[in-house]
Amino acid sequence: MKCRKCGGKASVNMRQHKLALCKKHYLEWMPEQTERFIKKYEMFTREEKILVAVSGGKDSLALWDILARLGYQADGLYIGLGIDGVSPSGEEFGYSSESQHLTQKFADERGLTLHIVDVEKEYGQPIPVLADITHRGKGRPCSVCGLAKRHVMNRIARDLGYAVLATGHNLDDEAAVLFGNTLNWLGEYLLRQGPVLPESPGLARKVKPLCRFYEREMAAYALLRGIEYIYEECPFAKGSKTIYYKELLNQLETECPGAKLTFYLKFLEVRKQGLFVEQDNAQAHLKPCPNCGQPTSAPGLCSFCRLMERAMDISA
Amino acid sequence: MKCRKCGGKASVNMRQHKLALCKKHYLEWMPEQTERFIKKYEMFTREEKILVAVSGGKDSLALWDILARLGYQADGLYIGLGIDGVSPSGEEFGYSSESQHLTQKFADERGLTLHIVDVEKEYGQPIPVLADITHRGKGRPCSVCGLAKRHVMNRIARDLGYAVLATGHNLDDEAAVLFGNTLNWLGEYLLRQGPVLPESPGLARKVKPLCRFYEREMAAYALLRGIEYIYEECPFAKGSKTIYYKELLNQLETECPGAKLTFYLKFLEVRKQGLFVEQDNAQAHLKPCPNCGQPTSAPGLCSFCRLMERAMDISA
Repeated sequence: MKCRKCGGKASVNMRQHKLALCKKHYLEWMPEQTERFIKKYEMFTREEKILVAVSGGKDSLALWDILARLGYQADGLYIGLGIDGVSPSGEEFGYSSESQHLTQKFADERGLTLHIVDVEKEYGQPIPVLADITHRGKGRPCSVCGLAKRHVMNRIARDLGYAVLATGHNLDDEAAVLFGNTLNWLGEYLLRQGPVLPESPGLARKVKPLCRFYEREMAAYALLRGIEYIYEECPFAKGSKTIYYKELLNQLETECPGAKLTFYLKFLEVRKQGLFVEQDNAQAHLKPCPNCGQPTSAPGLCSFCRLMERAMDISA
Repeated sequence: MKCRKCGGKASVNMRQHKLALCKKHYLEWMPEQTERFIKKYEMFTREEKILVAVSGGKDSLALWDILARLGYQADGLYIGLGIDGVSPSGEEFGYSSESQHLTQKFADERGLTLHIVDVEKEYGQPIPVLADITHRGKGRPCSVCGLAKRHVMNRIARDLGYAVLATGHNLDDEAAVLFGNTLNWLGEYLLRQGPVLPESPGLARKVKPLCRFYEREMAAYALLRGIEYIYEECPFAKGSKTIYYKELLNQLETECPGAKLTFYLKFLEVRKQGLFVEQDNAQAHLKPCPNCGQPTSAPGLCSFCRLMERAMDISA
C-alpha cells in the first residue's frame, strides 16, 4: 500500500474511505478532517473557550492534541471517578489513578491547562461506592457515573465560563448508541443525538468533533503521534450493551466496509431533511435545580442532587 | 418444559414470549394469534375474497392453512418462476418444479382453489433468463423476480376480483427488511413498511398476517401440522444481504430474546405515534401504465412492461 499523497509506504489504510496514507500525511489528514467537521457542523470558533473532557483514553487525548494543534483555546477537564480497587475475581486495578497520571503527564508535557475534579473529595464517595449505596443501575455504576460526569462537566463549564464542552466520542461510539436507540426506537434520543447539542440557559454547547472517525483511525492517530494513553477499558464497561452493539457493527463493517459511517451519516442527513417530527422544545420545561442551579425537568432537585441526598442519608 | 395450557409435555418453547405449549395447544394458539393480528391491523373480514401468494415454502402454505382453518375465503396463487436447471457448480436443482408440485398437492388434498401463472408460458422466458438477457440486478435475478411477482400478483388480484393479497412474510423477514432500511435510513421505505398496505385505485390491499411470528414458530407450525413444504431456499437467495441481516438479528436475538420482535413492534408503534413526517401521498402521482393498466409513477410504461419490452427487443 502506498500513501496517496507522497507515494511513500502507507502506515494507515482506510478501506471505508479507499484511502491509504503514510505517517506524516496521516498526522496532517486527521486535524484537517477535524477542522472540516468543526466548520461543517458549526461546532465552535477560535474565539470561543472550549473545555475538553479528558479521560486518559486515546480518543479524548487525541481530541485535545488535535484542537491544540489547530490553535483552538482548549483546556482539559479530568474527572477522578475513583475506579480503583480489587475486582471480585481478586484482580487489582487502578483505572482512575493510571488514567489521571497519563492525563496529567500529557498536559504537563505540552503546557496545557488541566482542571481536575475528584468525585470522592468533592462529593464524599468514589463512583462505585455511590452506585453501590444508592442501589442505582442494577449492579453497574455506569448510570451513576454518566450522571455524575454530566453534572461535573456542566458545572465546571458554567463556573469557569467555557462556551463549549467537547467530548472524544468517535464514530464507533456514536454508531453504537444510534444502533441501540434504533433497535428500541427511542424517539426522544433519536431526535437529540448528533455532533452538536446547542447551548441552552445554564448549559454549555456540547460537541463531538471526532464523531466521523472510526475507532481504529483514532487508535492509529494516538499511536503515530506517540500519545501515551490508558489501553484498558473501564473495568465496569465489560459486558455492556454498547460493547455488544459495537461488536455487531464491526461484523457488519467487515462484511460491508463503510456501513457504520453510512448508518450514522445517513441518519444525520434524513433527520436534517425532516424525516422525523421534531418534538416541542424540551428545554422550555426546564427550571434550575434549587440546590445546584443546573437546569432540570424534575419538579424538585435535579437527578444528581437527589442521588447525592440519598447517598448522604444512607451514609448518615 | 410443560405446556402452559394443559401441563402436558411441551412441543414448542417460545423464550421470547415466555410460553411453552404442547402440539395440540400450539396448533390452536397459532390461528388464535393470527386472528388477533388480522383484527388488530384491520387486515380483512370474512366477507372479503383473499388471494394468498403461495411459494411452496413453510410460511405461505402455513398461512393458507391457517386462513382456511379460520374460515376465511382464501384462494392460492402460485407463480411458476422457472427456477430449475443446473447451477454453475454442476448441481441440478428443481426449485420451481418441486415447489409447484408441493403447492398443488397441498391444495388438492384440502380442496382449495389454486391459480397458477407460469412466467415462461405467459411472458416468453423464465425469470433467470429474463434477468440474464436484460442485465438487470448485477448477476442475481432477485430484482427481476420481485418485479415480476408483484406485477403478476396485482394482475391476478385485479382480474379475478380479489380485495386482498396476503403474503407469508414472517417476523424474521420483516425485521431483516426493516434492519436494511434502517441501516441505510431509506425514509420512503420506512414510511411504507408494515402489516397492511392499503388498497389504491387499481391495486388490491396487501397484508402480512404472519408478520409477528418468528420464523422458527412458523417452521414448528408447518412441522406439527404435517404440511409438506420445500425446505430449500431459492438457490439465488444464497449470500443475499437479507440473509446476512437475518443472521445478525439472530445473533442479537440469542443475546437478548425478544429483540427482533421489539425492533419491529416498537417501530410500528413510534410510527403510529407520529415519529416520522408522513410524505405527500405518493399514490397521487400514479397513473395507469398504457400497456398493462397497472398504476405506475413512471411517465411511460411501468417498470415491468419496460422490462418485457427490452427482453423482447433483445430476443427478436
